Amino acid sequence: MKARVLVSLKSTVLDPQGQTVRAALNGLGYSTIRDVRQGKVFEVEYDHEADLEAIARDVLTNPVIEDYRIEYLPA
Amino acid sequence: MKARVLVSLKSTVLDPQGQTVRAALNGLGYSTIRDVRQGKVFEVEYDHEADLEAIARDVLTNPVIEDYRIEYLPA
Repeated sequence: MKARVLVSLKSTVLDPQGQTVRAALNGLGYSTIRDVRQGKVFEVEYDHEADLEAIARDVLTNPVIEDYRIEYLPA
Repeated sequence: MKARVLVSLKSTVLDPQGQTVRAALNGLGYSTIRDVRQGKVFEVEYDHEADLEAIARDVLTNPVIEDYRIEYLPA
């Protein structure tokens, strides 16, 4: 089975990496880009049961500055 | 409008970062995790038209080793 865990900075946390990408895109002429935030995605393949909620919360995410979202993918 | 661009290593390219995460999870007792691949996600906010296809292809992705997927999000 497959799922993906999206980890992104909380909206209250500055994202200099995303801002740099936005500035670069604007500089390249893509002037309609208003905001970019960069995060991580973990594509996980697992056998039957796996406690992805615990994994995402305890291992993949730094809860002080990051949020996560789990999306289960069709097999 | 919002969209996200998921950038991940091509399946033929080794992903040592993902393998390290998998090994760590297995070591922590999450033994049903078979594979992890790590990628990047760009959450993009844009006004009306933006050529996200060109942006993803030419700027956000290294086409030699990476694939991308664009997902348009409801507003």
